Amino acid sequence: MELKYQDGLIPAVIQDKASGKVLMLGYMNPEAFEATLRTGFMTFYSRSRQKLWVKGETSGHKLLVREVRVDCDRDALLVRVELRGPGCCHQGYESCFFRALTPDAEEKIVEPRRFDPAEVYKENRS
Amino acid sequence: MELKYQDGLIPAVIQDKASGKVLMLGYMNPEAFEATLRTGFMTFYSRSRQKLWVKGETSGHKLLVREVRVDCDRDALLVRVELRGPGCCHQGYESCFFRALTPDAEEKIVEPRRFDPAEVYKENRS
Repeated sequence: MELKYQDGLIPAVIQDKASGKVLMLGYMNPEAFEATLRTGFMTFYSRSRQKLWVKGETSGHKLLVREVRVDCDRDALLVRVELRGPGCCHQGYESCFFRALTPDAEEKIVEPRRFDPAEVYKENRS
Repeated sequence: MELKYQDGLIPAVIQDKASGKVLMLGYMNPEAFEATLRTGFMTFYSRSRQKLWVKGETSGHKLLVREVRVDCDRDALLVRVELRGPGCCHQGYESCFFRALTPDAEEKIVEPRRFDPAEVYKENRS
């Protein structure tokens, strides 16, 4: 699968294959993409920590890859996964997109919290 | 809604609100975000053409905004839309993510074509 990386990275939309929920957006470099295919678990490149990052390595809430898709321009991926745990977001929600814009341009939380981050993360987030 | 733009842009995952299908990934600058909220139709910033781009301005297949969500890091958006037309992709598919990786690392088209791009686009793509 030919991919176009920009500044060494390609964005990956992560979608729960069963529910269709969009869980998060992450970035992969070629090494992370290779590790994702080889292990079957989503592995990103952390821009802030500048290293590979197996999603869920701390929380245990890993993302098992079910299908990888590429877009028409080959510069974005859609990875359909099975979420192994109650939530993908380090703030305790199933999806990182748990806040919606309201009609008055404010925002509100529109998803229930699924777990207590303080219980799950002792050291780092992932 | 406070947003973190990187190099002036924020990525927006576009999802069909009714079906849950992920249609595309686009980028917005602050001006495109403001235009999207003001008009109710997805307006991106085209990195290649370096200008605002109303999705569907040529094809007529516009994306009507139904809900805007922001992620935990405030550096990605999920916009749930109503697709006004047969397809979002300029190659004639409903979703730009119409190709999947096969087990032997090749790829194949896994979605039906919804329209003939040659009929729809006389000049530019959008």
